[in-house]
Amino acid sequence: MLADLGDAAHANFRVITATLHEIAELCILIRMGATVAIAGASGYAGGELLRLLLAHPELGVGTVTAHSKAGDRLIAHHPQLIELADRILEPTTAQALAGHDVVILALPHGASADIAAQLPDDVLVLDCGADHRLTDAADWQKFYGTEHAGSWPYGLPELVHADGHKQRDALPGATRIAVPGCNVTAVTLALAPGLAAGVVAPDDIVAVLACGTSGAGTSLKPHLLASEIMGAASPYAVGGVHRHVPEIQQNLQLAGGRPVTLSFTPTLVPMSRGILATVTAKLTGDGDGGSVRAAWEAAYADEPFVHLLPEGQWPTTAAVLGANTAHVQVTVDEAAGRVVAIAAIDNLTKGTAGAAIQSANLALGLPETLGLPTTGVAP
Amino acid sequence: MLADLGDAAHANFRVITATLHEIAELCILIRMGATVAIAGASGYAGGELLRLLLAHPELGVGTVTAHSKAGDRLIAHHPQLIELADRILEPTTAQALAGHDVVILALPHGASADIAAQLPDDVLVLDCGADHRLTDAADWQKFYGTEHAGSWPYGLPELVHADGHKQRDALPGATRIAVPGCNVTAVTLALAPGLAAGVVAPDDIVAVLACGTSGAGTSLKPHLLASEIMGAASPYAVGGVHRHVPEIQQNLQLAGGRPVTLSFTPTLVPMSRGILATVTAKLTGDGDGGSVRAAWEAAYADEPFVHLLPEGQWPTTAAVLGANTAHVQVTVDEAAGRVVAIAAIDNLTKGTAGAAIQSANLALGLPETLGLPTTGVAP
Amino acid sequence: MLADLGDAAHANFRVITATLHEIAELCILIRMGATVAIAGASGYAGGELLRLLLAHPELGVGTVTAHSKAGDRLIAHHPQLIELADRILEPTTAQALAGHDVVILALPHGASADIAAQLPDDVLVLDCGADHRLTDAADWQKFYGTEHAGSWPYGLPELVHADGHKQRDALPGATRIAVPGCNVTAVTLALAPGLAAGVVAPDDIVAVLACGTSGAGTSLKPHLLASEIMGAASPYAVGGVHRHVPEIQQNLQLAGGRPVTLSFTPTLVPMSRGILATVTAKLTGDGDGGSVRAAWEAAYADEPFVHLLPEGQWPTTAAVLGANTAHVQVTVDEAAGRVVAIAAIDNLTKGTAGAAIQSANLALGLPETLGLPTTGVAP
Amino acid sequence: MLADLGDAAHANFRVITATLHEIAELCILIRMGATVAIAGASGYAGGELLRLLLAHPELGVGTVTAHSKAGDRLIAHHPQLIELADRILEPTTAQALAGHDVVILALPHGASADIAAQLPDDVLVLDCGADHRLTDAADWQKFYGTEHAGSWPYGLPELVHADGHKQRDALPGATRIAVPGCNVTAVTLALAPGLAAGVVAPDDIVAVLACGTSGAGTSLKPHLLASEIMGAASPYAVGGVHRHVPEIQQNLQLAGGRPVTLSFTPTLVPMSRGILATVTAKLTGDGDGGSVRAAWEAAYADEPFVHLLPEGQWPTTAAVLGANTAHVQVTVDEAAGRVVAIAAIDNLTKGTAGAAIQSANLALGLPETLGLPTTGVAP
Repeated sequence: MLADLGDAAHANFRVITATLHEIAELCILIRMGATVAIAGASGYAGGELLRLLLAHPELGVGTVTAHSKAGDRLIAHHPQLIELADRILEPTTAQALAGHDVVILALPHGASADIAAQLPDDVLVLDCGADHRLTDAADWQKFYGTEHAGSWPYGLPELVHADGHKQRDALPGATRIAVPGCNVTAVTLALAPGLAAGVVAPDDIVAVLACGTSGAGTSLKPHLLASEIMGAASPYAVGGVHRHVPEIQQNLQLAGGRPVTLSFTPTLVPMSRGILATVTAKLTGDGDGGSVRAAWEAAYADEPFVHLLPEGQWPTTAAVLGANTAHVQVTVDEAAGRVVAIAAIDNLTKGTAGAAIQSANLALGLPETLGLPTTGVAP
Repeated sequence: MLADLGDAAHANFRVITATLHEIAELCILIRMGATVAIAGASGYAGGELLRLLLAHPELGVGTVTAHSKAGDRLIAHHPQLIELADRILEPTTAQALAGHDVVILALPHGASADIAAQLPDDVLVLDCGADHRLTDAADWQKFYGTEHAGSWPYGLPELVHADGHKQRDALPGATRIAVPGCNVTAVTLALAPGLAAGVVAPDDIVAVLACGTSGAGTSLKPHLLASEIMGAASPYAVGGVHRHVPEIQQNLQLAGGRPVTLSFTPTLVPMSRGILATVTAKLTGDGDGGSVRAAWEAAYADEPFVHLLPEGQWPTTAAVLGANTAHVQVTVDEAAGRVVAIAAIDNLTKGTAGAAIQSANLALGLPETLGLPTTGVAP
Repeated sequence: MLADLGDAAHANFRVITATLHEIAELCILIRMGATVAIAGASGYAGGELLRLLLAHPELGVGTVTAHSKAGDRLIAHHPQLIELADRILEPTTAQALAGHDVVILALPHGASADIAAQLPDDVLVLDCGADHRLTDAADWQKFYGTEHAGSWPYGLPELVHADGHKQRDALPGATRIAVPGCNVTAVTLALAPGLAAGVVAPDDIVAVLACGTSGAGTSLKPHLLASEIMGAASPYAVGGVHRHVPEIQQNLQLAGGRPVTLSFTPTLVPMSRGILATVTAKLTGDGDGGSVRAAWEAAYADEPFVHLLPEGQWPTTAAVLGANTAHVQVTVDEAAGRVVAIAAIDNLTKGTAGAAIQSANLALGLPETLGLPTTGVAP
Repeated sequence: MLADLGDAAHANFRVITATLHEIAELCILIRMGATVAIAGASGYAGGELLRLLLAHPELGVGTVTAHSKAGDRLIAHHPQLIELADRILEPTTAQALAGHDVVILALPHGASADIAAQLPDDVLVLDCGADHRLTDAADWQKFYGTEHAGSWPYGLPELVHADGHKQRDALPGATRIAVPGCNVTAVTLALAPGLAAGVVAPDDIVAVLACGTSGAGTSLKPHLLASEIMGAASPYAVGGVHRHVPEIQQNLQLAGGRPVTLSFTPTLVPMSRGILATVTAKLTGDGDGGSVRAAWEAAYADEPFVHLLPEGQWPTTAAVLGANTAHVQVTVDEAAGRVVAIAAIDNLTKGTAGAAIQSANLALGLPETLGLPTTGVAP
């Protein structure tokens, strides 16, 4: 590779004579080139975005904003971000977010659309909220009860479509990207390969999730108190009423080419990070042990962030903690006539902030994997 | 009531003149009348049995035995049982267990049959292991790989049968009782009413469980280390291979009158006690919101240990910690065409030791609820 | 004993002819005789009081009140109290609390004094808040910043005084009792025997506590969110500013007969219930391994709720979960010249609600141990 | 800087013409230059070393060895290390470890000395075990009971000595380094500045630690089962018998110039990673609020991995999870006459594996911070 480079004379290239250490220092300088503003930086998704940006070689931390926490120093809310301890949270306004190459919105659902509309068209805006995910305005209206803000290119690069292409094709050059929901990512990555390959049926999918509490954010709700969570497993939004339902259906329909029927039940379990999605669907006539494994292998063989584990080894959320990685496993329960597909992700990393950076990399023409951790912090 | 008692002259009665405090002390004396020997007392089920017996007004603690821990004092393994601190664990033999009114076996699966065969026929023996639960020898052979020991009356009093009677009818006077598996209890109690009432279909049931680690007992396995469990949700025995599958199917077939198809996936989550079972099944033509709720209400209205929560309130394992109680809720997901029924139990109490005491009460002619806690230790 | 009873002819006695089962039912009837009103019943201490009262043979649940939760059904806040599910929380007023034999106040610090002043003198009032614990008005003023409400008899029966008597002597017949703080109970029970026996010095005591989160109650504070607590150990109120400091000093001064110097640091750890207090103090000239153990043995040999564990076995909070029990151990570190004494309690049981019931038993002339669990719910 | 580089013509330099992306790829190539073999790679410290090496720009992963797990693929033990999934664990022998620039021993205490003796003198060997930490052979004999293997340069760069220099001075060019114990690191970093500055006294130090379970490694011991740990705080090695005691004393004596007296009590709490050390010591005549804070500020102002938090903000282990960072805070309790200093670290990162890499960086002449994460994975 280096030999080829020697011949290059492109205007974007420059000649560098450096020791290896100086290259390392250079990387730090370069960081400051493209900057990213974070709206909602005092929350958990905001903190995770900042953690990832601090390790990203080509994206730097720009303005950080908050709502009720505006005026505070970052260390008051994110002691883990010691390098950014003295940054002051500014109020979340379009003005404060202006002047950056990238703006990432980590705001409550429903709060992104207004502020996004005020940002310049040529700034890359990624919305970690739900506002721009759904393509069907009726779905939005039904589950969120407000006017639909319109949909943006969807930032789940590994989503395989029925025609075989993947969602990442939609992202290079995009200036608006809707970052998927965390539960949605886990369920979609678990099952989409089977639908795309036609080995599982779309008409009776059942997903049950074990979810960490950080997905619920920093809002002060009684059921999120530590005393309520530790020692408890608790379902919520049971019976098809969770707002992630239409988004999952939208993805799985893209994968299988047909509408899907989905029963979806999330449960809170005593851990801060992590989602384990157990998804079952009926085998089609074409589905058996061999074709099922082949479908998942084909879908994820070349994916840098989604890994089909060796047969017999099942995902655990601990193995993906802090990593932009999904671990997936699948098997066939012949007696039940069902595939069981399981995915584990970190809801804040691959489920939110890592997904945003991954999509930003693609949109900006950077390597998709740049700056993103693939090793979990375990045990 | 007391007035009526004044006329009684039955030989079993005796005249007592006492202050209220003396009645309380009397209860303690009476305890020593019927004694219970515990085989496998060093394990978690054994410890829970002893905790419950210490609070039981008519059953006292007899011999306690263990295998590798024989010779140890109980406090070395159960510091919570301070009243029994100095009891010595004897080796588990039929001789050691002899001379008691009741023997409860809390042994590894496969270890009960031999020892049970050596106990007198008129002693009440309850087996917390799986050895005597399955009625179908082929199922036993398939899932356990050894010769079938035969089945005993099944100790899940609340199990509603297709003809409307309940399993408790089989227990009075029984001298051999198979205590149900903990996962089995949770799934069965969640769904059986719908099958018995014909509002859900038996042919495509999906159960996913969040399970505490104490169900796995005290065996030293790497995946049960605290460092592996905390922060992790992990599935196990996926794809229909868990040994509880045939037992659940056996129960649900009794409830619905027809064989069932079941997809069953347990997951370990970071808590010591508790099982949350999320069970979904397809609605039949007769099933709708009203008929579904009516079915569950009818099944559990008079049950002292199984409670259908108020509509909209979902079970949490924390609320049943240490109690012999199951909390159940059910709803209809019309878009998915499925009922979602959820049950929470403490795997060691209602899931094992409490179930044993409850069945022993019935077998001995005592009030079913005697000595059993119904209040959870929360938060 | 029963023989003696046969001769009794006291007006308080009555002749009962009953089967044993009927005696059990009788116990339930009797419960309704003396009733207890709970102010602050929607909180964690309130829930624990109700759990204990449901199992108490001579005290029944009366009115339950709350502040912001008034009007709610109990099950909305305490699903574990299934027997009381439909009880309605009334507003906390003296009127609502009137007409009961006992009133227990489980209110925020500073809120008890006003309401207590409005209750009749002959009603037994127990205050689980701090308002009436401190005998020194200056201490109260310094740590709480308001006017001192005066002190009540202090409800820690096992507290050994310098002259050898114990605190329980102050409680029979009392109509006002201040229930100790939870951290205070743990530290006091750990160290008091050494001070009373003169084997440890009062002038340089260091206590560091690992505390469960339920002690902080149900208030919605960011640092109490589950996501913040799980995976984290965090100190708070460091440097002598915790409000429990003067109360501990008051107790230890009673034990040793001289003022004490105390460094006190509590830390939050990821568990809901439990306090583990590690307390060290310097050996006096009279202190050595033998005299130290003898001091603790003498103090607790006859205590029903405080247990000195066998040498070499250390307390763990799990073993006292849900029990009104303190487990204590002590050793001498000769190289450091210090005693290390450790106590484990459940902050809601022995640390609050159980202590209240224990003191109420004493005040009412009931057996001190009546209705109180001594077996922990472990693991 | 780049301008200067243009003039350079040193033989170590080379001319690179590259896009920024190609520089990133180059970093990966360069990694393979210096390789690190890990002995004991199947354990928790081994896994953490591999996680850090995967992100290190100039150190690559070489041979990985294990004892009982030899022959297994890494993914069987470390599913979080997906990039190394197929690496085979070789038996731990000097032969297997040969041929690398660096060897890190993550073996049980007592197992390092033999294998280290067989490695070439010019290979950098870092021992994460205790074998080469203690300078006093009698201490080793007393606490470990075997022959002393001799001491190596001690890898705690931030340890301030009484004469003002820091321990990092001993590391450049070293070929043998003893990596500190995790508890030791936390206690030392908490208190050393006060001793070095003479504001706290060495004669009555008390340290109580809340420790995650991963520090106990993967050994299968009953008290490390998840069911035993969750919901429990439990002390161990109480009374001065913990093997880390002499190592802490050795460090604190270096800091203060005089022997220290230490009471040390570790407690296990329900978290996998993290140590929170609460350390108190008596103020000297020179100590007050101002001089204390000045001492800690002076010690850590320029440290890249040790951070004195803003006044009033206390360390929490969650903020350093997965980071090579210590967070420290200190205050004066005037009433108690004591300083309270608290440090939080991740026992596997700054407490073990990160410390090893940090010292390796120094020994090899690389920037001390190279490749080491400073941002915690929170919440």
